[in-house]
Amino acid sequence: MFDADKPGNGCVNDFSRTLSTLVWEPLIPSSAVTIFSGGTEGVLSPHVTFIVEEKSDTGLLAAVGRTRVLDPDEIGTPEHAKQVRKTVIAMIDSLGVPRSHVELVLVKCPLLTSAKLEVIRATGKVPITTDTYDSMATSRYASAVGIEFALQGLSESELGVTISSGRKWSSKASCSSGAELEDCHILVLAKSLSSGCLRAVSSFMENAIDAPTIMYLLDKVKEDKGEVLQVFAKAEADPSGLIRGSRHTMNTDSDIHSTRHARAAVGGLLAGLVGDTQIYVSGGAEGQGPPGGGSLCIVYRYNGEV
Amino acid sequence: MFDADKPGNGCVNDFSRTLSTLVWEPLIPSSAVTIFSGGTEGVLSPHVTFIVEEKSDTGLLAAVGRTRVLDPDEIGTPEHAKQVRKTVIAMIDSLGVPRSHVELVLVKCPLLTSAKLEVIRATGKVPITTDTYDSMATSRYASAVGIEFALQGLSESELGVTISSGRKWSSKASCSSGAELEDCHILVLAKSLSSGCLRAVSSFMENAIDAPTIMYLLDKVKEDKGEVLQVFAKAEADPSGLIRGSRHTMNTDSDIHSTRHARAAVGGLLAGLVGDTQIYVSGGAEGQGPPGGGSLCIVYRYNGEV
Amino acid sequence: MFDADKPGNGCVNDFSRTLSTLVWEPLIPSSAVTIFSGGTEGVLSPHVTFIVEEKSDTGLLAAVGRTRVLDPDEIGTPEHAKQVRKTVIAMIDSLGVPRSHVELVLVKCPLLTSAKLEVIRATGKVPITTDTYDSMATSRYASAVGIEFALQGLSESELGVTISSGRKWSSKASCSSGAELEDCHILVLAKSLSSGCLRAVSSFMENAIDAPTIMYLLDKVKEDKGEVLQVFAKAEADPSGLIRGSRHTMNTDSDIHSTRHARAAVGGLLAGLVGDTQIYVSGGAEGQGPPGGGSLCIVYRYNGEV
Amino acid sequence: MFDADKPGNGCVNDFSRTLSTLVWEPLIPSSAVTIFSGGTEGVLSPHVTFIVEEKSDTGLLAAVGRTRVLDPDEIGTPEHAKQVRKTVIAMIDSLGVPRSHVELVLVKCPLLTSAKLEVIRATGKVPITTDTYDSMATSRYASAVGIEFALQGLSESELGVTISSGRKWSSKASCSSGAELEDCHILVLAKSLSSGCLRAVSSFMENAIDAPTIMYLLDKVKEDKGEVLQVFAKAEADPSGLIRGSRHTMNTDSDIHSTRHARAAVGGLLAGLVGDTQIYVSGGAEGQGPPGGGSLCIVYRYNGEV
Repeated sequence: MFDADKPGNGCVNDFSRTLSTLVWEPLIPSSAVTIFSGGTEGVLSPHVTFIVEEKSDTGLLAAVGRTRVLDPDEIGTPEHAKQVRKTVIAMIDSLGVPRSHVELVLVKCPLLTSAKLEVIRATGKVPITTDTYDSMATSRYASAVGIEFALQGLSESELGVTISSGRKWSSKASCSSGAELEDCHILVLAKSLSSGCLRAVSSFMENAIDAPTIMYLLDKVKEDKGEVLQVFAKAEADPSGLIRGSRHTMNTDSDIHSTRHARAAVGGLLAGLVGDTQIYVSGGAEGQGPPGGGSLCIVYRYNGEV
Repeated sequence: MFDADKPGNGCVNDFSRTLSTLVWEPLIPSSAVTIFSGGTEGVLSPHVTFIVEEKSDTGLLAAVGRTRVLDPDEIGTPEHAKQVRKTVIAMIDSLGVPRSHVELVLVKCPLLTSAKLEVIRATGKVPITTDTYDSMATSRYASAVGIEFALQGLSESELGVTISSGRKWSSKASCSSGAELEDCHILVLAKSLSSGCLRAVSSFMENAIDAPTIMYLLDKVKEDKGEVLQVFAKAEADPSGLIRGSRHTMNTDSDIHSTRHARAAVGGLLAGLVGDTQIYVSGGAEGQGPPGGGSLCIVYRYNGEV
Repeated sequence: MFDADKPGNGCVNDFSRTLSTLVWEPLIPSSAVTIFSGGTEGVLSPHVTFIVEEKSDTGLLAAVGRTRVLDPDEIGTPEHAKQVRKTVIAMIDSLGVPRSHVELVLVKCPLLTSAKLEVIRATGKVPITTDTYDSMATSRYASAVGIEFALQGLSESELGVTISSGRKWSSKASCSSGAELEDCHILVLAKSLSSGCLRAVSSFMENAIDAPTIMYLLDKVKEDKGEVLQVFAKAEADPSGLIRGSRHTMNTDSDIHSTRHARAAVGGLLAGLVGDTQIYVSGGAEGQGPPGGGSLCIVYRYNGEV
Repeated sequence: MFDADKPGNGCVNDFSRTLSTLVWEPLIPSSAVTIFSGGTEGVLSPHVTFIVEEKSDTGLLAAVGRTRVLDPDEIGTPEHAKQVRKTVIAMIDSLGVPRSHVELVLVKCPLLTSAKLEVIRATGKVPITTDTYDSMATSRYASAVGIEFALQGLSESELGVTISSGRKWSSKASCSSGAELEDCHILVLAKSLSSGCLRAVSSFMENAIDAPTIMYLLDKVKEDKGEVLQVFAKAEADPSGLIRGSRHTMNTDSDIHSTRHARAAVGGLLAGLVGDTQIYVSGGAEGQGPPGGGSLCIVYRYNGEV
């Protein structure tokens, strides 16, 4: 598996993601999946993270998978969530650990372009949204709901209601949309049954300035004399327009999309606390942590006594 | 005195600053000065900070002043720095404290618009730059050099060389440019000779992720059982293109200007550590802290034992 | 009456409109209405157009009016359209000419900000959209439908169905949304029953490169030896993603909103053909001309023989 | 030869150009050159134009060439212009026509990225500018001066003075900068000594709304019963801040760079007059037509009587 933070705008017309796909995919095994997340606003630094297989038990298990290709009119719908749920369940099963051992489910999912909207209209169907930027959010949310259903062991029958209500969220879900793929690429990270030198801790930020939660996880790493290998975070503009009671302007800025603002701010906070700008911070946290917050997972190397 | 963080883009065409000037200036005494800083990227929240006179000694002294109106062709030049130097010296003198007691010199200075560039050309003179956004940086730098010369007790004869070299910086300077004024508005904050319940500590961030310096100042506040009243910070994209050795993309992003990126990232870090999004974070730190870093001042209320 | 093209982004956070309102409204009679349209992309030049009363019959009649204040949850709904319809009908009646004499109905209508969305949520109601930029489009469309119903003499009972279908349009409607008002400001321009030296011709552009229609109207002006006084045009990104069969990228550009692209392009075409950059070109033509096109009205002074 | 208008921002971080290079270059002969111009603002449609060899004389001659690789500190300097001049002279010689037969010299030239700026600093040299966006303009201007010197038969000794003065321009030059190359890619189009069915006419637009010049060239095409095959135009924001005496806002818009505004507006005008959105309109016309204007070349198929 392979993921990367790329220097484009992280939105619909982020050609740096397509460029990365084109450059990297021929270089990695076909059994691997790529997850390219665009948008290195503020201090964030373009980088690549490889997650590779080791012979010995490291303490951390990874599985990669893909859903089937989604038809354009399925993006963001209960069917989308269903395919993610099914795939994630099979991936966890393949790891042979209980669901509670999962620390992160990272998904790259498709979005609606003008061309895909025309395909939908041509077949007389109705797209879930006609706004291409908005389709990124609906796609992320459907993926997050699929993850949460898989992790909670919920049956797929409630998927439709949940998608409509917009209320469900998972602190293990991290979803990013892009124009460079038609299916969903998925990575699951879980603790193994034995303990090794690689570890992961996860939680969720309550809001975009939730330094205490970040510090709490970093303290756990410190207790283990650990060295942070990678941080996977989601960030978003609080839909209420407020952060701890004070107005923010991310949702009324028509010059910079809110996902760019959120990545810049939460990326600045995380990079400062971790002391590293090559971290994975993705914008748009619908269903991935509470509204205005975001999921957070830190992978580190244990250096304490065994 | 009066300053505010406004929700515009903080750049040349930030009409929220002009709008604020128009709304607020009739409401405050003519002896007061306003300093409107635009750009509430990321989590930053539009707000207003009043610095008002108290009868009793609070422990903190403030002076406000203005330079004479600068001709368009003077903006960003040694003459600009000279006027700032002279005004700041007079302001410090009026406070009756040594220069070393100064914790912050906040300046709002003019920029070059298309109209001002035409005025310069019409008189056969040469503008310091023909790029309106770039003129914001040259104006900030001239102001910062003026401040540093005042605080270091340097004579004005070296101003020209220093402006050319681009090397001088002050950790007490915080300068912001705008199209809404023709002179420089200046605020000086200094410790009084006695101690009271209002205090200020200042330092400089080495780079845009310098959490340790921020925490160091916040620890001082904590030792005094203090309550943070306001934070004044400057931020900028490191001109080297690197932050602690890792590439950033602020200087090659033609969609979002680097000052917006810098405010968003450093604002996110500060807001998280302080726990408040209504803080003053201004973009473009030329001469206001080391390259890629920025000046930082925290004003707080002392609640410890006296 | 008074309208102006302002240099902001023409979107949700266009503070130049609010600034203009603040500056101009105290200077004009309270019986006048202002219509500030933001966004002077490309060659468009910020300017102000006054439409003032003359004692003698000029050949052109104008009426101004306002709807009642719209509650935030009414914006973009059939109730919004109903209020516009009612007001426009009364305005036309006041002019004493048949509906067919109307050449232009210019409307400025409110949008949803984060604050208004919170007001709606607080009262347990559902906003028509939670996307502030999208609310500009729904508001414009409701205004346009109201205009079309007034001009066609249609009863208000069909308003709900029409709003849902999204299919109705008027070549006389020109609607612009803004955060600077709570009601709708309306201007009606109509031919008087006698003929004078002021005239107006209107039509609709089929798409964003419909030079033939523009030239056709300009030829009419030329036949009258006329001098163009003002052009009122609407422009939008074709929702199909195509213009005459070729792909455009306005709907997938996450850096620049499609209304800005549309104003720049159609503004460039009109300014070139008219030979003047101080023209009124407004973005977002939902219901104001066919999809991808836009309404067009040219006001001119007749200099031919009488 | 091969050129294309790509859907990125046309500025420093336009990854669509790099993506195009990566996709197309393996598909075309190594003897061909590519010229990718980014930025399809407004109605402009992403497209590709192939200029291919024909056995018989078509009436139009084409040569392609490359300068040597330019060192980062050479970009935008007299040395850059010298290399372009030398290469263009050799290319015209290879065509065997007088210089006066040349209708278009299209150049793609490099720009300064953060990485290249660091390379320059590391060697103790001084970059021509430290602003990456500004480096695009200096690079285009050096290319244009090189072209003009080649076409006018001027010796290279005056190159330095001309670069400094910023005054020279050519109506045959069309230059575009990009991060995707290190040398200059050049295409020369010239009339052959005999006449065939392919023809080219060129001129320059006086300003960004110069419809008369465009119509004048299109009338020539019409006289030949011609069919437009491609339009090559340059556009820019008038550095005076005015277009025919009216203010424009392209140079004070810190949200959208002026080259994007210029492409959108001039692209809208040209697409409307030509009736086609798949045309080549490139932003930043330093030395390529008079200030605020731009070079213009129309290639068409002659269908008149021979």
